[in-house]
Amino acid sequence: MENFTFYSPTFFAFGKDTENDAGKYVKRFGGSKVLIHYGGGSVVRSGLLDRVKKSLEEAGISFVTLGGVKPNPRSGLVYDGIELCRKEKVDFVLAVGGGSVIDSSKAIAAGTIYDGDFWDFYTGKRIEEALPIGTILTIAAAGSEGSPDSVITKEEGMFKRGASGDAIRPKFSILNPALTQTLPAYQTAAGITDIMAHLHERYLTNSKDVEVTDRLIEGLLLTMIHEGPRVIENPDNYEARANIMWAGMMAHNNSCGVGRSQDWNSHNIEHELSALYDCAHGAGLAVTMPAVFKYVYKHDVSRFAKLATRVWGCQMDFDDPERTALEGIAALENFLKSIGMPLNFAELGAKEEDIPTLVKALCYGDGRTGSISGFVTLDEEDCTKIYKMMI
Amino acid sequence: MENFTFYSPTFFAFGKDTENDAGKYVKRFGGSKVLIHYGGGSVVRSGLLDRVKKSLEEAGISFVTLGGVKPNPRSGLVYDGIELCRKEKVDFVLAVGGGSVIDSSKAIAAGTIYDGDFWDFYTGKRIEEALPIGTILTIAAAGSEGSPDSVITKEEGMFKRGASGDAIRPKFSILNPALTQTLPAYQTAAGITDIMAHLHERYLTNSKDVEVTDRLIEGLLLTMIHEGPRVIENPDNYEARANIMWAGMMAHNNSCGVGRSQDWNSHNIEHELSALYDCAHGAGLAVTMPAVFKYVYKHDVSRFAKLATRVWGCQMDFDDPERTALEGIAALENFLKSIGMPLNFAELGAKEEDIPTLVKALCYGDGRTGSISGFVTLDEEDCTKIYKMMI
Repeated sequence: MENFTFYSPTFFAFGKDTENDAGKYVKRFGGSKVLIHYGGGSVVRSGLLDRVKKSLEEAGISFVTLGGVKPNPRSGLVYDGIELCRKEKVDFVLAVGGGSVIDSSKAIAAGTIYDGDFWDFYTGKRIEEALPIGTILTIAAAGSEGSPDSVITKEEGMFKRGASGDAIRPKFSILNPALTQTLPAYQTAAGITDIMAHLHERYLTNSKDVEVTDRLIEGLLLTMIHEGPRVIENPDNYEARANIMWAGMMAHNNSCGVGRSQDWNSHNIEHELSALYDCAHGAGLAVTMPAVFKYVYKHDVSRFAKLATRVWGCQMDFDDPERTALEGIAALENFLKSIGMPLNFAELGAKEEDIPTLVKALCYGDGRTGSISGFVTLDEEDCTKIYKMMI
Repeated sequence: MENFTFYSPTFFAFGKDTENDAGKYVKRFGGSKVLIHYGGGSVVRSGLLDRVKKSLEEAGISFVTLGGVKPNPRSGLVYDGIELCRKEKVDFVLAVGGGSVIDSSKAIAAGTIYDGDFWDFYTGKRIEEALPIGTILTIAAAGSEGSPDSVITKEEGMFKRGASGDAIRPKFSILNPALTQTLPAYQTAAGITDIMAHLHERYLTNSKDVEVTDRLIEGLLLTMIHEGPRVIENPDNYEARANIMWAGMMAHNNSCGVGRSQDWNSHNIEHELSALYDCAHGAGLAVTMPAVFKYVYKHDVSRFAKLATRVWGCQMDFDDPERTALEGIAALENFLKSIGMPLNFAELGAKEEDIPTLVKALCYGDGRTGSISGFVTLDEEDCTKIYKMMI
């Protein structure tokens, strides 16, 4: 195991009706003038926004609102949010929504008290200071509710980039599984896929002797495999949604990823898809993961065989471990298909002729010089082959 | 899953040589005058205490020291520590040792700024304020490095009682697995047993639909079963100790115990043993757990069968699930025996004739009125039978 530090100071309130305590928690963590940041109409239609406003009013906290966050959140709205926060002297940002809303909130929280262009943080500058952030999560997926990360897309060039820093870890996150019950099945499944991707990105490691984190990741994957179909079958299954919601947080607060190298090549390869086609991140990952895994599994057949046997219940083929490894990847594909995820370019709305564009953005964007690194280093040729495997 | 809150704000620095950063972390978390609290001679003999002092000096932090913490830490030394902290105007308590040292440090940190008798916190008063605490852990066992709990024994009557509060969560904890390599095998095994007990106490629940925490607990138990024998076989196995050390923290910071009722009857039943005989807590738990589980397994055969199949690799006997449940408990017993733990009163140094004394203290101490509650409520008769099963 490698040396590491771990710090996850977010206060979590989990369960039914917990959103009604939003005002109490904003107060506890020092907010007096809040920006409520949210996405589209569902937060309004469901009455959630009104309940949150009521909770803040009852706690004597004033607020302004900014809606309109889209999936794959854009820099334009972040600039608007920063301007609004400065003008209104906002001292706390409350995200009401999913990963996109939370990531946009994190960008606004950091950008408001930064002299330069907030995009600096998304091109390598670490975030050291930000307004305090709280979240009310409406989809189990991104894990942003317990992470120090944010991903934003810049409209000019559609660059999708990440920023990081303990300062943008939420002070509190409210997780009420019931709020996710109204999600369309496709979004629920995309969220499940995103969570499983966060686990796979950590599982694919070159570090040795990492049994404890292996076992934690496997346990969370087993949970997703058990609970995912339950919630697709019955969207109102609160208990299944609750298990998925806590798994989503645990999958990404890094308690199961410490002390080991991680991959993130599937995420990098997918980011170009959702940047270009504006598809759901989880759907892009469903197309990306099996292709990447089939391309790289020979790098460590034993690890893929372990995943296949421990997580997918495959029988170990001791004469031919590669067969077991591939059986595990096939089981993942079947699972993703069974919950309604796309598995190829056509189903995702991606086009073969865009592959050179995707590869160029992937291998040369974000300061890269011809390759991406992770579990395996992949150059232009590798990435081209991987995208072609998705056709 | 039940509603819950979760808050684990401790900063963890994990790995080789991390103790040399003690000064840096004390400074980061606001300490300028430190009490270094420790136990016996090993911390001195190994040179650890000197390295810690050097690190504080290099960071310009002054300190006083108080050694002498014993296993099952006593109230007498806590009073001494409180007096010393007040006299020397200490503003930070640094625990260098295992769970006993950390628990004693927590009591001192809370007691120093409290007007009344610190023992109030151990008879029901919640700890709301304390001096900040840091820890340098020297044994993987108690999980106190990441928990809001402390257990102290009062000399008068040898009452062993717990206190709790977020204020005594360590600000930082330094976990260097190499520091545990010099531990005697018996202490290492007792630590392993304590960690496994923390997992079992959470696993035995009456809450339904808790797959995610079930799977996390199972993953940590599987880790202990894999890594425990490796470290007993070779005490210098850094990697095995590293896996155990992180598992020990994760087992007790409650991320795998949220949203479910928990047991803690084994701990309560054991506490009377270590209070009376001053045995190692982990050794007491090795004697206690199998007896308790054999006494209560019929309350939920399915749960014990799940534990047996998922964790101990037993084949499910679909015609006779009770057999599977008991097979799992037998596997636990065999495991504990294999790492050198005692399994009965004689091996522990306990005496049959003390059972009435133990039961009285257990069922009527600490404000109880004739029973203890958890997975199953156990009255005097039950507890007598359980202690007799340990003979």
